[in-house]
Amino acid sequence: MTFTSRTAICLSDGRELIYFNEEPTDWAKYEDTRHLPPPPPTSQLRYDPLVDEWIAIAAHRQTRTFLPPSNACPLCPTNATFASEIPAPDYDVVVFENQFPSFSDRVNEDEVTEITGMVPVRPGVGRCEVVCFTSDHNSSFGQLSPARVRTVVDTLADRTTEMSGLTGVAQVFPFENRGVEIGVTLQHPHGQIYAFPTVPPRTRSMLAASARYLERTGRDLYTDVLAAERADGTRVISSNEHWTAYVPAAARWPFEVQIAPHRKVPDLPALTDDERDAFGPLYLDVLRRFDGLFDKPMPYISAWHQAVVGAGRELGYLHLQLFSIRRAADKLKYLAGSESAMGFFVNDIVPEKAAQLLRDI
Amino acid sequence: MTFTSRTAICLSDGRELIYFNEEPTDWAKYEDTRHLPPPPPTSQLRYDPLVDEWIAIAAHRQTRTFLPPSNACPLCPTNATFASEIPAPDYDVVVFENQFPSFSDRVNEDEVTEITGMVPVRPGVGRCEVVCFTSDHNSSFGQLSPARVRTVVDTLADRTTEMSGLTGVAQVFPFENRGVEIGVTLQHPHGQIYAFPTVPPRTRSMLAASARYLERTGRDLYTDVLAAERADGTRVISSNEHWTAYVPAAARWPFEVQIAPHRKVPDLPALTDDERDAFGPLYLDVLRRFDGLFDKPMPYISAWHQAVVGAGRELGYLHLQLFSIRRAADKLKYLAGSESAMGFFVNDIVPEKAAQLLRDI
Repeated sequence: MTFTSRTAICLSDGRELIYFNEEPTDWAKYEDTRHLPPPPPTSQLRYDPLVDEWIAIAAHRQTRTFLPPSNACPLCPTNATFASEIPAPDYDVVVFENQFPSFSDRVNEDEVTEITGMVPVRPGVGRCEVVCFTSDHNSSFGQLSPARVRTVVDTLADRTTEMSGLTGVAQVFPFENRGVEIGVTLQHPHGQIYAFPTVPPRTRSMLAASARYLERTGRDLYTDVLAAERADGTRVISSNEHWTAYVPAAARWPFEVQIAPHRKVPDLPALTDDERDAFGPLYLDVLRRFDGLFDKPMPYISAWHQAVVGAGRELGYLHLQLFSIRRAADKLKYLAGSESAMGFFVNDIVPEKAAQLLRDI
Repeated sequence: MTFTSRTAICLSDGRELIYFNEEPTDWAKYEDTRHLPPPPPTSQLRYDPLVDEWIAIAAHRQTRTFLPPSNACPLCPTNATFASEIPAPDYDVVVFENQFPSFSDRVNEDEVTEITGMVPVRPGVGRCEVVCFTSDHNSSFGQLSPARVRTVVDTLADRTTEMSGLTGVAQVFPFENRGVEIGVTLQHPHGQIYAFPTVPPRTRSMLAASARYLERTGRDLYTDVLAAERADGTRVISSNEHWTAYVPAAARWPFEVQIAPHRKVPDLPALTDDERDAFGPLYLDVLRRFDGLFDKPMPYISAWHQAVVGAGRELGYLHLQLFSIRRAADKLKYLAGSESAMGFFVNDIVPEKAAQLLRDI
């Protein structure tokens, strides 16, 4: 199933909210009755000259909502006793601008332009949205139906198209953080979409590697990596006509799976109907295996890597990167000195063993 | 004070242990009475073609010692009831090869050389050492005397010189992880030294940025960044004749301080006596401020960035990067989707405010 209609409203502070409805509804008639203060100005981007990267400084996020009780969940539908972010009494999938965004178009006019002459500064112009996958507070992505996953994919595609067209947006990044072990501050099943103001460091590395490979071989890097994994098969978890899920040979996380379409497409909007339908069953199977590894909900980060909006767009190959920091039933992988200070990853789990464990479930 | 003698012994499995003694001792006469199995072979480095980085796969680390009770601490001196890693009944500073190293010279002979044709593989040849700062299990680096810090600096310099000369070593990296919140598996005050087999990603970024800056301006990048911070002063925490501690203008961690010598030197061995003596009081002051922020021990990573051993060595400027993931008394900064999947850091604390909070303690 996909959504049959999308209806947008404004929340009381001017932020946009969009219902993606699987059946016709009149949810747009419900108004936000809260009296919210104006949203904060966007973050400040500061350039770190030592490593040639931009950092976002977002002071207003320090006071964001932190693990509220379930009867005050801002992602549940509004009910008689609590007015949440979603004015309607129910929803299928809903998207709205984050109240505490890392990036937005609300630029502070008296913004400075540099710090110390070595550190250029600019506003973090972009957009951050929250995506609620279901109105059921106690559900999880892994418990969604394949039909609902299709609605979510179509929603992310819709948002990718729209946010790619916004001024200053370099890349649209849909992702889900799941589990308090990974820092989730709201328990309700939800994801986020970041429209980045600059190309993020990992994407820059991927673009540089792809460009060098193309120059050297005349071929597409991700296409060849995926073909090699499918031919080898040792690390493949599952596959269908359109998608393959595999543990990368050089996985950096204890349990890491990449899920890629067999056809090179830049982003979610470029997927066909058949490809979109085929994704849900495969992804739900992988999530079930993740939760089965230690017989408890697996904390994870699920990240859609899409093509950039500008230069280098032709090098992008859509794929999902799913990884967990749990390395044993009672142990987490921490990013300590080697990883956090130097970026050198040491993985305690052999990728072939991780693949075997996931396949055996 | 510095060490007056260094005496090396072999542990029962052949690993090297070195006592750095502030006073003459006969600790070398104590033998390791344990019957340890041979150490594991070194890790396997796998090349991730998508981002052009090497990942270490170190399966044997999965079973490393994990938060043992204090009467079975492997970093305390050996006593009548427990034989630890250190055979002597006491020590000042001691260094030994890690029993569960990410890198070593023990190469598995039947090692493969590639996976799938897209992923070259090579042995993780290098060295990992543990540095015990004190025999007092319940102490911490911040409680050491300035004299002991000098001994530690001299020890790290000694190890840097020796490990820089080992075959295949690209960079020597002394660091301390402190606090269970950051993944520490042994509570006894200790640091580690990694002799990396390839230049780590952050160092590669720093070298590339320094090389471009030199090409463009004819000047040294870190020298100019430090001069700009000292001239501005807004983010300086403290300084003395030889060192300045400051919060970087584009800090990526909630509380991050860099401590740099005023004179450009490549690494710890290049520091003069006066510079070494001046480091301890300044660093101890900064650590005291860290612990004072939330009136409880601050989890932190303390990382010495030294020049690489090979090409690009002349671009290196020794400095210490100290940072914490604690952003409030009861909240940690987690590296979630934006940071872990994309490398895009969002910092909730304005660097000038972090500096003010640290100065006010």
